[in-house]
Amino acid sequence: MKTYLDCFPCFLRQALEAARMAGADEEGLRVILDRTMALLRDAPLESTPPEIGDRVHRVVRQLTGNDDPYAALKAESTREALCLYPRLRALLAAEEGDRLERAVRIAIVGNRIDFAPGTDFDIEETLESILYQPFAINDLWLLREALSEARSALYLGDNAGETVFDRVLIEALDVPVTYAAKDGPILNDATVEDARAAGLDEVAKVVSTGSDAPGTILARCSAPFRRLYEEADLIIAKGQANYETLSAGGERLFFLLKVKCPVIARDVSAPVGGIVLKQG
Amino acid sequence: MKTYLDCFPCFLRQALEAARMAGADEEGLRVILDRTMALLRDAPLESTPPEIGDRVHRVVRQLTGNDDPYAALKAESTREALCLYPRLRALLAAEEGDRLERAVRIAIVGNRIDFAPGTDFDIEETLESILYQPFAINDLWLLREALSEARSALYLGDNAGETVFDRVLIEALDVPVTYAAKDGPILNDATVEDARAAGLDEVAKVVSTGSDAPGTILARCSAPFRRLYEEADLIIAKGQANYETLSAGGERLFFLLKVKCPVIARDVSAPVGGIVLKQG
Repeated sequence: MKTYLDCFPCFLRQALEAARMAGADEEGLRVILDRTMALLRDAPLESTPPEIGDRVHRVVRQLTGNDDPYAALKAESTREALCLYPRLRALLAAEEGDRLERAVRIAIVGNRIDFAPGTDFDIEETLESILYQPFAINDLWLLREALSEARSALYLGDNAGETVFDRVLIEALDVPVTYAAKDGPILNDATVEDARAAGLDEVAKVVSTGSDAPGTILARCSAPFRRLYEEADLIIAKGQANYETLSAGGERLFFLLKVKCPVIARDVSAPVGGIVLKQG
Repeated sequence: MKTYLDCFPCFLRQALEAARMAGADEEGLRVILDRTMALLRDAPLESTPPEIGDRVHRVVRQLTGNDDPYAALKAESTREALCLYPRLRALLAAEEGDRLERAVRIAIVGNRIDFAPGTDFDIEETLESILYQPFAINDLWLLREALSEARSALYLGDNAGETVFDRVLIEALDVPVTYAAKDGPILNDATVEDARAAGLDEVAKVVSTGSDAPGTILARCSAPFRRLYEEADLIIAKGQANYETLSAGGERLFFLLKVKCPVIARDVSAPVGGIVLKQG
């Protein structure tokens, strides 16, 4: 997906948020905003939003000297999500309905969770609503078919905490899964360490993408990961950033996300707030 | 009120919105965003947000060659609001409850209305909710007291369409009112012509502020208007931009607004979505 001009206000918003997380003072925030705007003036719209976002977050890390502004938030998110894990397992084990669909829905709930301090987030309500909310795009039957033919699956993770919800979906799959996480900190994305802390190594082979950019920017990934990606029968890609970077990736890909912004809503053809399982 | 760094993403959003209204193509939009970011890099935070917004909208008008991007929207808003006028009059005439409070609430509904195409706006629901929604800040008793002592009132208008709701409040006041509107087009703010089209000249003396900047930037207003402002016993200031530009103006001022953004929410100490009647 290309970058839209409507992403620009959001890049400034993200720079402010990350810089505050990193502990910048007002003067530092202003410098970071100015540098971000200078960067955006030259940014090519043919890039995907995560490619530009990656540059923005580099500015934040460089100017604040904080390499991992979201570290505390990520640890807290994983801790809270692990507390929910028995509940999620019980939901998966329920007798009624379609097990794969339930597992997909649980994984999408994970894409919705936000344990950031100050956000008024009711996990019970979110679980309830997403378990019964109709899909905006539902390619479950295509995923089921692809799974029946695949020898294995590659799972591209998204945020820390969300990892625990991914684990439940992986437990519902009948094929061996490789779980790819970031090589280093970016936003609240799960790194290999974050994925292990969520217990992903108990249900999948956890690997690094070799990159610390948001989403999955193949040109920035390691050669071993790119080989893994090229050889995968089936790829489950979680969250908006993976959609933004891989939307042209073909029908081996299945995107699982909750639509959170109007730009992606337009691109994916689903409303903001909609839950999406879409074949690439 | 000073400008916060959180206003910066919003300035970019406003530039995009206004430029699209003015008919800019993608290339033009990019140039306008770049010029806006260049402008923001030097913008002094001691200015109020409307002072910076004014510069942003000048860039849009200059680069698109469109002096009044919101002209069609304003005409449509006034037309739609005039259709509601008999309904608003009937609400004001209702026997139950406090007439002044009802009139103030109707005026605040006007600050909420948005007839922009594509917005899913239900006037019935909005009327219902604001007529019964508790005030986040309620200085009605102070306004009542001030009105009982004032010989006249100055009313600072906000958007076209909202003007019709202002008219209903003015009809409920027992003092002669001067209604101030913009001297030229800016955003969807009511100009003197827009105010007349809404029938304000039937209930008030309609005057120009002498300025086409958003809100009321006194330094940009005409000498006759500044004299009017200085001599007024009581001033009713409608909407966020008037709050942003006059919040330090003293206790002759009464701000009527619906809080629409988190920056103003923090400054005025009321939640987003809250309705506010606040003495300055």
